[in-house]
Amino acid sequence: MNTAIFYHAGCPVCLGVEHMVTEAIDRSKYQVDTVHLGERTDRIKEAEAAGVKSVPALVLDGQVFHINFGASIEALKH
Amino acid sequence: MNTAIFYHAGCPVCLGVEHMVTEAIDRSKYQVDTVHLGERTDRIKEAEAAGVKSVPALVLDGQVFHINFGASIEALKH
Repeated sequence: MNTAIFYHAGCPVCLGVEHMVTEAIDRSKYQVDTVHLGERTDRIKEAEAAGVKSVPALVLDGQVFHINFGASIEALKH
Repeated sequence: MNTAIFYHAGCPVCLGVEHMVTEAIDRSKYQVDTVHLGERTDRIKEAEAAGVKSVPALVLDGQVFHINFGASIEALKH
């Protein structure tokens, strides 16, 4: 099973994209893990290491896709 | 069947995202139409009407998702 991690921060833009990710991704191929970085600040470092610069972002098998723009990852640190 | 239209311009960023779209989207729910706006300039107007500002972009049931950034739609008109 491939891994899909969806990083978001609960913002309105994030929620619209989360809906898309949840609906459209092929669940027979991908296990989707959703991470709210506002609540899970301990996972910001992991997201940054994966190349996430802003949320919402989807990491599929290690490749980052920034989808629309909600907030920079810098803004989530404060 | 839901409709997914993937607009791109053949750019390297576009190709990476196209791979993701092709692999990850649930084909049992979505029929994916791929449009190269560099070759199909006649469809730029339709993309703009859907809200596409840059490519690559994915339009799912009329909702636009700008995924990463390859080129602005303005740049494709010249």
